Amino acid sequence: MSRVYNFNAGPAALPLPVLEKAQAELLDLGGSGMSVMEMSHRSKEYAAINDQAEANVRKLMGIPDDYSVLFLQGGASLQFAMVPMNLRRPGKVADYIDTGSWSSKAIKEAKVNGSVNVAWCGKEENYMRVPKESELNLTPGAEYVHICSNETIGGIRYPTFPKTEAPLVADMSSEIMSRVIDVTQFGLIYAGAQKNLGPSGLALVIVRKDLMERCPEDVPIFLRYSTHAEEKSLYNTPNTWAVYILKLVTEWLDSLGGIPAIQRINEKKAQTLYNVLDSSDFWRTPADKESRSIMNVVWRLPSEELEELFVSEAKKEGMVGLKGHRSVGGLRASLYNAVGQDAVDALVSFMKEFERKHG
Amino acid sequence: MSRVYNFNAGPAALPLPVLEKAQAELLDLGGSGMSVMEMSHRSKEYAAINDQAEANVRKLMGIPDDYSVLFLQGGASLQFAMVPMNLRRPGKVADYIDTGSWSSKAIKEAKVNGSVNVAWCGKEENYMRVPKESELNLTPGAEYVHICSNETIGGIRYPTFPKTEAPLVADMSSEIMSRVIDVTQFGLIYAGAQKNLGPSGLALVIVRKDLMERCPEDVPIFLRYSTHAEEKSLYNTPNTWAVYILKLVTEWLDSLGGIPAIQRINEKKAQTLYNVLDSSDFWRTPADKESRSIMNVVWRLPSEELEELFVSEAKKEGMVGLKGHRSVGGLRASLYNAVGQDAVDALVSFMKEFERKHG
Repeated sequence: MSRVYNFNAGPAALPLPVLEKAQAELLDLGGSGMSVMEMSHRSKEYAAINDQAEANVRKLMGIPDDYSVLFLQGGASLQFAMVPMNLRRPGKVADYIDTGSWSSKAIKEAKVNGSVNVAWCGKEENYMRVPKESELNLTPGAEYVHICSNETIGGIRYPTFPKTEAPLVADMSSEIMSRVIDVTQFGLIYAGAQKNLGPSGLALVIVRKDLMERCPEDVPIFLRYSTHAEEKSLYNTPNTWAVYILKLVTEWLDSLGGIPAIQRINEKKAQTLYNVLDSSDFWRTPADKESRSIMNVVWRLPSEELEELFVSEAKKEGMVGLKGHRSVGGLRASLYNAVGQDAVDALVSFMKEFERKHG
Repeated sequence: MSRVYNFNAGPAALPLPVLEKAQAELLDLGGSGMSVMEMSHRSKEYAAINDQAEANVRKLMGIPDDYSVLFLQGGASLQFAMVPMNLRRPGKVADYIDTGSWSSKAIKEAKVNGSVNVAWCGKEENYMRVPKESELNLTPGAEYVHICSNETIGGIRYPTFPKTEAPLVADMSSEIMSRVIDVTQFGLIYAGAQKNLGPSGLALVIVRKDLMERCPEDVPIFLRYSTHAEEKSLYNTPNTWAVYILKLVTEWLDSLGGIPAIQRINEKKAQTLYNVLDSSDFWRTPADKESRSIMNVVWRLPSEELEELFVSEAKKEGMVGLKGHRSVGGLRASLYNAVGQDAVDALVSFMKEFERKHG
């Protein structure tokens, strides 16, 4: 067996020690005589996993008691629907900031059933940056302001978050737990797990408890945050395997020193790659420097032919997932928490050699 | 490592060869150098898994081309909401048959947003049977008739399905692929995967294509069946791990001879257990004989103390998951496809000894 350097945008690399533990326990978790996948979600064994996963998330992110931590299904895409269903009351407006593909998708879903004000849109600038606070056209009395804190496809992120009167709601799928944030700046944070937290099929939702009370009565029971908060994410059968892996991933992260430590590691990884990209005109980075993501690094080569060659040559060297999203083309390396400095070092060595040959 | 006899109601036993294969491939699927959990859902490798999983389901169940096969998240509980959202147009009525806990939960959800006619209710009889067709109080012009084909908690099932003018919609979570059915009798079939198909966090939905066109425009994009049908269950990141396990489970089932073969095995397992339960007054089965489930066998002992003793003594013998659901008490053995005749033989041996000691 040889493991590749995995730069996938999501689902993405998982920490090797997590995979090895999951593999060792796959047929018999903790002497139970069964796989975690075969355990009742009502058992004491699984309740302990669920509780520990929540405790790990709370500890790592410093989440206060007036926030609920939920493990839901349907990824961030279901959250695009649940956020307006739960937080935008009839006749009210929600503000959305459009910084790329993912915020656009959230906006499209929010428009199906109510009023949306797009407070800023970066489309005409090819989504190369996030807005300054002074550029935002916010609605007085808006129900919330929605952002995508890191755009996986465009490779941009908010260096700091806007201060808004209405509760700030953030899709953090592609940067959750990659850098220190102050949870109390947000009304609601959500993230698909398949980038920094675990496998796909799980969404982490962190929601200020008072906001859950807004939910109109005609929202289906399953789609109310309060339903899941009251039952500690056990209203229905959760994705038990994914919660178990998330528990292992968060324990791995804690063992490294938590989010402050991984932030330093992540910043160094990104800097290593951006240093090469900034070193010559052979490489071109579409994102504004101030908005550059440290999770998803996006760049172009002088031609599409060279980009294709780059991807295929890199694959021969055991580096995968470097093709940009089909909607924007180019190249992309996703440097999530589980991607080590060794992977980035291998990538930049390859890049220097590629430039020497084709530059 | 010693594996237990697992009679859990769900999540439940998985076939050992499936677990062993998943374990062997956990760090490196098919020479890809990564886990299936680390693969892009847009990759060729994952597309092949997704396609094969769908093909396996179609082959095993004999699903015609005018039905879509969807792999969704949120389990059956989200289907309780999606079915009325998609199939019940404004101002129209849906008929529901109430045969126990799970059909009641579906009814509760369907009532949030529209009209429900309960066409039959077994509550006053303690949900001991399914109705005869002649007892149903169906609505002329109803949008659909909803049944729970097998009630996991009460341990009853439909020996044959009612013939209805409106499309029949069935929650088959706890008996999907356990016996031969004619899919064309149904407008829509759904099932949480965590009993007969794989791990939790996945729902299989089989829906007649014309019914998807009913969906009103104010239904969120993510919650429309058509959204997922158009993208072959890849509209958003699916639960890739669960689809992969479902693929392995369906291949295992096919290797046994498919659903006709497992039906014979399941009927024999159930008969083995019911024979003991019918052999003396020490055991009492609340379900009517004609309605007895072959998946979830429910029984009582002369006292709750004896029931508790039964559970704890059985556990010492390596048999788990025998406690009845907390809402009804008593005992229950779930005999899903992955539970072997050996497990049932061990259980009945234990039962005979238990009766000898305490009867």
